[in-house]
Amino acid sequence: MSTALLAALRERLGAAQVLTEGDLSAWELDWRRRWRGRALAVVRPADTAEVAAVLRLCAAHGTSVVPQGGNTGLVGGGVPDASGMQLLLSLARLNRVRGLDAANLTMTVDAGCVLQAVQHAAAEANLLFPLSLASEGSCTIGGNLATNAGGTQVLRFGNARELCLGLEVVTADGQVWDGLSGLRKDNTGYDLRDLFIGSEGTLGVITAATLKLHPRPAASGTALATTTSLAQCVALLTLARKRLGAALTGFEVMNRFSLELVARHFPTLPRPLPGAAWTVLIEQADTESEAAARTRLESLLQAAIEAGHIDDAVVAESLAQSHALWHLRESIPLAQSQDGPNIKHDIALPVSAIPGFVEHTEAALAQAFTGMRLVNFGHLGDGNLHFNVQAPESRSAQEFLDRNEHAVNALVYDAVCARGGSISAEHGIGTLKREELAQRKPAVALQLMRAIKQALDPQGRLNPGRVL
Amino acid sequence: MSTALLAALRERLGAAQVLTEGDLSAWELDWRRRWRGRALAVVRPADTAEVAAVLRLCAAHGTSVVPQGGNTGLVGGGVPDASGMQLLLSLARLNRVRGLDAANLTMTVDAGCVLQAVQHAAAEANLLFPLSLASEGSCTIGGNLATNAGGTQVLRFGNARELCLGLEVVTADGQVWDGLSGLRKDNTGYDLRDLFIGSEGTLGVITAATLKLHPRPAASGTALATTTSLAQCVALLTLARKRLGAALTGFEVMNRFSLELVARHFPTLPRPLPGAAWTVLIEQADTESEAAARTRLESLLQAAIEAGHIDDAVVAESLAQSHALWHLRESIPLAQSQDGPNIKHDIALPVSAIPGFVEHTEAALAQAFTGMRLVNFGHLGDGNLHFNVQAPESRSAQEFLDRNEHAVNALVYDAVCARGGSISAEHGIGTLKREELAQRKPAVALQLMRAIKQALDPQGRLNPGRVL
Repeated sequence: MSTALLAALRERLGAAQVLTEGDLSAWELDWRRRWRGRALAVVRPADTAEVAAVLRLCAAHGTSVVPQGGNTGLVGGGVPDASGMQLLLSLARLNRVRGLDAANLTMTVDAGCVLQAVQHAAAEANLLFPLSLASEGSCTIGGNLATNAGGTQVLRFGNARELCLGLEVVTADGQVWDGLSGLRKDNTGYDLRDLFIGSEGTLGVITAATLKLHPRPAASGTALATTTSLAQCVALLTLARKRLGAALTGFEVMNRFSLELVARHFPTLPRPLPGAAWTVLIEQADTESEAAARTRLESLLQAAIEAGHIDDAVVAESLAQSHALWHLRESIPLAQSQDGPNIKHDIALPVSAIPGFVEHTEAALAQAFTGMRLVNFGHLGDGNLHFNVQAPESRSAQEFLDRNEHAVNALVYDAVCARGGSISAEHGIGTLKREELAQRKPAVALQLMRAIKQALDPQGRLNPGRVL
Repeated sequence: MSTALLAALRERLGAAQVLTEGDLSAWELDWRRRWRGRALAVVRPADTAEVAAVLRLCAAHGTSVVPQGGNTGLVGGGVPDASGMQLLLSLARLNRVRGLDAANLTMTVDAGCVLQAVQHAAAEANLLFPLSLASEGSCTIGGNLATNAGGTQVLRFGNARELCLGLEVVTADGQVWDGLSGLRKDNTGYDLRDLFIGSEGTLGVITAATLKLHPRPAASGTALATTTSLAQCVALLTLARKRLGAALTGFEVMNRFSLELVARHFPTLPRPLPGAAWTVLIEQADTESEAAARTRLESLLQAAIEAGHIDDAVVAESLAQSHALWHLRESIPLAQSQDGPNIKHDIALPVSAIPGFVEHTEAALAQAFTGMRLVNFGHLGDGNLHFNVQAPESRSAQEFLDRNEHAVNALVYDAVCARGGSISAEHGIGTLKREELAQRKPAVALQLMRAIKQALDPQGRLNPGRVL
């Protein structure tokens, strides 16, 4: 049966776009090298019509489909399982910018466009597509939408969901839903767009999107500040929101150990402030002049020092200095991975609950796992922490992970759920957190999700084993 | 069978909250007095548990349920049909503010809270809940969410959808989904929240919501400007977005006839600028001082005059003057209704398509319906026009409406759909536009919507005959 399917796919797409031989690890092995699958074949359709044809052929043959963008996901949601029976559907060749409407502040792009290419296309029209994350050089906009990606600009501009006005989606049975729309208001029926966004390829295959653009801010400012506690970070955030309003575009926090890791593995990076319990990175973007923007930022920091929220601060004097400050923040993930594998948590909580959560949970981890080191950093403005547990210095990181991952997860996720938090703020569920979701999501929500999955993919052939 | 249901409802809610006698027109007749139904009973549960009990009893008896908030909808989505067999479920007694979290910028409220009460509760904490619309004194937040209401602040803050972080919903079979969440990021499964938002009570009954709040802007400014064409209005909008950024909170346009109607029916209202083809109302809110905000607005208007986008402009010098400018805009709906019934269209288009659409469609209407008068006003910043056709001065408005409504709608909606627009930008589908939706929505979208409806309400008992 699979022979017949492969023959039909080769006839429809051309033999060169149906890969079954050679090293397929670019598609079969995930970015973290944690999941290695084996695909029936890797197919690379060129456009929406070919995606629809693939889906119709798979429906006819009862074959499962795993959609994949840039293969940069962190939760094992985009690689096939080990059965050799799932078709890996790469969207990478759907990479055209279909159009840009400056007066409407929208652009329509194929799903396989790399995020950075989308950003560049907007910039060429002197506009801003604000989604920005570490993997932007290789992740695709389709994957960003399928996982509702977050990143560093969410505070001001929202997640991928908030940046999308319309979608084109191929359904499980190979029909094309043209929901591409440049409309900011449209109350004609159920919100199909947001149902597909974040569904990780389990309800349909996103083939194109109409995205929201913004005017490019005329001026921006970046500052670094140090403080003694997360409670003071929250107080600073409240003050910054009040004084900067929508000009506040980023508010990142980094604990002492996360910046120590950066210093250890990237010793040449300049560190403009001495180590502190917490370091905060503040970014503002504004329509005023650089000078006016810097004055507002300095005035905020002065007020924060007077109120006792921060101890010290530095404002970037140039774009190069601003990049250097961001570079510190962005080096944390790499520094921690150079220190060995760790147990990652991508959690969200109400901002007000974060200081208490961290105090409680860090103490409980220290007690249960003597010597563990916490890499705690993230997007405080969104209530989102990357709360990663690193092995004690003296122990093998891999052995610590193998032995303790379940117990560490249980401790952290119990504390998160007790405070109304989320066990996946921006990375999704994929394979990694599927069991956890089944146990922790309220039963009524799971039941509603299963009913929707059954309605849209009754044969369960779209990215099976993910999410639900 | 209905006798047994009524007895069970009376036992559960108390006889006083199950109304079957007397004048029930407050619930059975819609605000526009266009739809008058007859309910099996009007039930008024006090809390979520009682709503769930009502839904379970209705499930057991196979009875349909029409949820209702403030009964201010414009499309006949919240009143029962004439059968006398549908239960009218009023959410009005669920009117508690459950809590407000200032550091997290959220508040959780019952669905029956009146929008103005929600605004006031936020203001008491020195925060802003920005949803604002004409009926805010009587509409409820549950209804706002069930219809994804829009209003005058969408340009900056989004529709009701963008102002909601979490929901509590009672399902068709009477289970309670507790999806209340103060999280800005949560990628744990399908987006149930946005599926219920805008589904007009056909998928579940919203009983509470966690809402996003914003810092109150320190300063605001309002201006009125006149111009010769919609193309110049779009050019002004682009300039305003660029210069004011996120400080631009409102951008309303009014055609000459809509302000003539206001002058005719409210002759004492001051009109600071002479009549023009188009009058634009611009609002900005900012974190700076009043003086700085006004300077930015004046500088924008100066640049717009120099660029030839506008002919004349006036900036409000006080809060009272600002209110007077808004009062002009807000008097249009009442002025037109005092002029007799008209044929209303709540349409959205890409902003860039609006000038061409209006030019084409107004000419086609004038040719087909000699003497018709177009009340054309709305939220240009959102691409949303209220494009209402008033009878010729010499003719009976009711007779014109009865005779021409279908033909007018066909002409307008054909032109909207040809340009990728929406036939319901912010009012929803309800009863009024159901047929239109069935004809105009792409077949794949309708099929997906029907599959979802079948999955979540397999017996079709939630607000039947609405939307689908």
